Amino acid sequence: MSKIANSFQEAQQAFLILKQQSNRDRTTFLEEIANQIELLKEELIPMAAKESNLPEGRITGELGRTVGQIRLFAGLVKEGSWVEAVIDHEDSERKPVPKPDIRRMLRPLGPVVVFGASNFPLAFSTAGGDTISALASGCPVLYKAHPAHPETSRMVAKAIQTAVGICQMPEGTFQHIEGGIDTGQELAAHPLAKAVAFTGSFKGGKALFDTCNKREIPIPVYAEMGSVNPIFVLEAYLSENLESAATAYANSLVLGVGQFCTNPGLIFVPKSHEAAFSSQVISQLKTVAGAPMLHEGICKTYHEALKNLAISEKLEWLLTTEANQLLIGNPSLAKVKASDWLNEEAFQEEVFGPFAIMVVYDSIAELEEVAVQLKGQLTCTVWGTSTELSGNKTFLNLLEERCGRLLFKGVPTGVEVGHAMQHGGPYPSTTDSRSTSVGSFAIKRFARPIAYQDTPEVLLLEELKDENPLQILRKVDGEYLR
Amino acid sequence: MSKIANSFQEAQQAFLILKQQSNRDRTTFLEEIANQIELLKEELIPMAAKESNLPEGRITGELGRTVGQIRLFAGLVKEGSWVEAVIDHEDSERKPVPKPDIRRMLRPLGPVVVFGASNFPLAFSTAGGDTISALASGCPVLYKAHPAHPETSRMVAKAIQTAVGICQMPEGTFQHIEGGIDTGQELAAHPLAKAVAFTGSFKGGKALFDTCNKREIPIPVYAEMGSVNPIFVLEAYLSENLESAATAYANSLVLGVGQFCTNPGLIFVPKSHEAAFSSQVISQLKTVAGAPMLHEGICKTYHEALKNLAISEKLEWLLTTEANQLLIGNPSLAKVKASDWLNEEAFQEEVFGPFAIMVVYDSIAELEEVAVQLKGQLTCTVWGTSTELSGNKTFLNLLEERCGRLLFKGVPTGVEVGHAMQHGGPYPSTTDSRSTSVGSFAIKRFARPIAYQDTPEVLLLEELKDENPLQILRKVDGEYLR
Repeated sequence: MSKIANSFQEAQQAFLILKQQSNRDRTTFLEEIANQIELLKEELIPMAAKESNLPEGRITGELGRTVGQIRLFAGLVKEGSWVEAVIDHEDSERKPVPKPDIRRMLRPLGPVVVFGASNFPLAFSTAGGDTISALASGCPVLYKAHPAHPETSRMVAKAIQTAVGICQMPEGTFQHIEGGIDTGQELAAHPLAKAVAFTGSFKGGKALFDTCNKREIPIPVYAEMGSVNPIFVLEAYLSENLESAATAYANSLVLGVGQFCTNPGLIFVPKSHEAAFSSQVISQLKTVAGAPMLHEGICKTYHEALKNLAISEKLEWLLTTEANQLLIGNPSLAKVKASDWLNEEAFQEEVFGPFAIMVVYDSIAELEEVAVQLKGQLTCTVWGTSTELSGNKTFLNLLEERCGRLLFKGVPTGVEVGHAMQHGGPYPSTTDSRSTSVGSFAIKRFARPIAYQDTPEVLLLEELKDENPLQILRKVDGEYLR
Repeated sequence: MSKIANSFQEAQQAFLILKQQSNRDRTTFLEEIANQIELLKEELIPMAAKESNLPEGRITGELGRTVGQIRLFAGLVKEGSWVEAVIDHEDSERKPVPKPDIRRMLRPLGPVVVFGASNFPLAFSTAGGDTISALASGCPVLYKAHPAHPETSRMVAKAIQTAVGICQMPEGTFQHIEGGIDTGQELAAHPLAKAVAFTGSFKGGKALFDTCNKREIPIPVYAEMGSVNPIFVLEAYLSENLESAATAYANSLVLGVGQFCTNPGLIFVPKSHEAAFSSQVISQLKTVAGAPMLHEGICKTYHEALKNLAISEKLEWLLTTEANQLLIGNPSLAKVKASDWLNEEAFQEEVFGPFAIMVVYDSIAELEEVAVQLKGQLTCTVWGTSTELSGNKTFLNLLEERCGRLLFKGVPTGVEVGHAMQHGGPYPSTTDSRSTSVGSFAIKRFARPIAYQDTPEVLLLEELKDENPLQILRKVDGEYLR
């Protein structure tokens, strides 16, 4: 048996135990993972900073976020209502046929394959949102480490294994797997895999999506593949907030050297204020010191993407960067007319790094056309005055079709981890716009409903017993009750 | 522009209006559809009976179910909590960065393509569960009529169109489309289609699934493709209930001439009681008068499937049927040893009609092997005494992985339309085990979450306004509130 086949056997054995455990057991386990990662802090932060080229301050914040989201899921599991329990009691007197007793709840899917992301060595990696939400739902995880930060990944994997030991979880609960693209494909194709979670490039996500749909038994793929996250700036708003808008935009564009899925790589600016706005943005960008990108491969791709775009005669370059740098990603900015943007699909493609296209528009009618042609995005942002927003409902109505999150203030970078977050938009930003990879709803990706009909009380799961021992919120005979 | 392209343009125009309508408008519309169908009763019942070869009594029941499920969805929309509204309020004082205001809810996907089923000319057809749950969510529907009952379909379509007119819904809200397989494929492939719902054969469902995954922008396919719905009879139970078990089984097998997705085409019986049980079942089946199937094509397929199985030397035939009948589907029964069943995948394939394989087992260990090898099912049923059920948790734990609904009493046919129903199991019984095509959760198939960040109060949808004008259940800052 191959090593991977063996890993799946272990995961499947673990699954049969995990799915019978109580919420309390699962909560304790998640809390222990958070504790173990905090204990590692002193060694983990410098290692993650070293392997990702990200500053220690940023990594410290990311560690806080990682631990915070583990505790969010621990709280969600402890509270327990996420399983959507529904009870329809029997009615033996009903005519023409008696009504059976049916009870439904979400149950874990089985072994989940999780792929780590290079741009978040902690929060979207080994003990990141995908791994934790899968474990929270009761699924074992086969984690494919990202080769960009191998030591960081091993350290976090060890922390999880320690928690597995302390909490006496089955051995196959979490498995750390290293390898390349072939290993990833083998994991996704294995018959015992029940779902895949991925954060990364369109190419990588699409390849997994295709593999999983061609399997004898297709499985869901939750691939978050990034987007260009347009910001639409309306005229009156811009005339009142020119300077603050330029500052906010420039800061968001270069945050983390532009290496965020929610980096705003497109900004739509009215013709009337374009010159003033762009000169402000450029002067802000010029003050940004070049910073190292995650690794040389990403930096090379960044410069190649810019080189490819430079061929276009429609783009006017406002700020260019040297292409001969091995690791440094300097900000870069180009400008195009909305009418030209509408005719060239390449202007919608994500350039991973601190680059943006500023699109100059003449009218709201043009923005409505943009909204129709725009590809699926994680986020869209509209900056307008109250009057402008209320007066352009058609545009907003069209625009919400293109994104998972619609912002009316602030910038798309800095994704809040909470209950209301939706981090997942229409394809190609993700492969499944019905799901989120950030926030508490992420747990639902790894579960499916099962209905139990006329089940003896003794066999019912706690969530479905009449006396409601967990005091969760349930729908009972059509009424929400606790 | 082709006729279909034109239909999608109309649907898309309708969508932009539908998704802004109030719950009240949508509720009134659904109720009006139910009323219009009831008004048609006198003409509709004989027509559906004539076109499906099903008795008028059965069609009368199906009409009641159809109208009942429309009212179930009307009630769900009126109550409004199905949208999973979540509000996380801002915290401008939070350090290091202020917390934004984020509000999330489910929003309709867009134009949905629905395929009618031949075996339910009303409940799974023109105004069936798929159409109604899509309309309930706020999606326009392009309905591809099933060619087996064209007049029935036209009559119901006209009822829906009348409701569209009375309620002043946009014209493209519901469109009735006739055609063959090519038309269906063209509908599923159109760029403006946002989801597909289908009930029918594995071949048909799989073809749509493949088409939709190969699109430039893949879309979800909810295909319910049927299954063999095994019943597992345990020894002590059978010794105590031999006669009633045989009667219940035989009745379920021949109900609707075996043309239900939940028809129990497999039954596992302990060796000790197999002879007594099968003789009871056979004598019951022999009393059943041959009845016409839905159409000649289905009857031909039924007889061909039996002919193909007859080649196997492992099957012992207990009851055979004449293959030269054009329309009549007589019950048929074959027997096989569990050890042989485990070695032959063909014994798991659905034979659409009143045919079953009785699998004779020696031990629970053998049933555990069966549970591991069993393909995904809409339902699995276990008949056991309390002691037997409690004593075989490993088997039950394995078995629930293979189905969407697990029954401990009664038969899988007769799918209850309610809040707790799950009609959708692991592949190949459906293409998406996370969804149901029966019951109120069916509405969730046609929606996706959108998060609105820092949205001006005046732009918020009613579901997300602070004062909660609809009085729906929401999660506000982590607490469930109304």
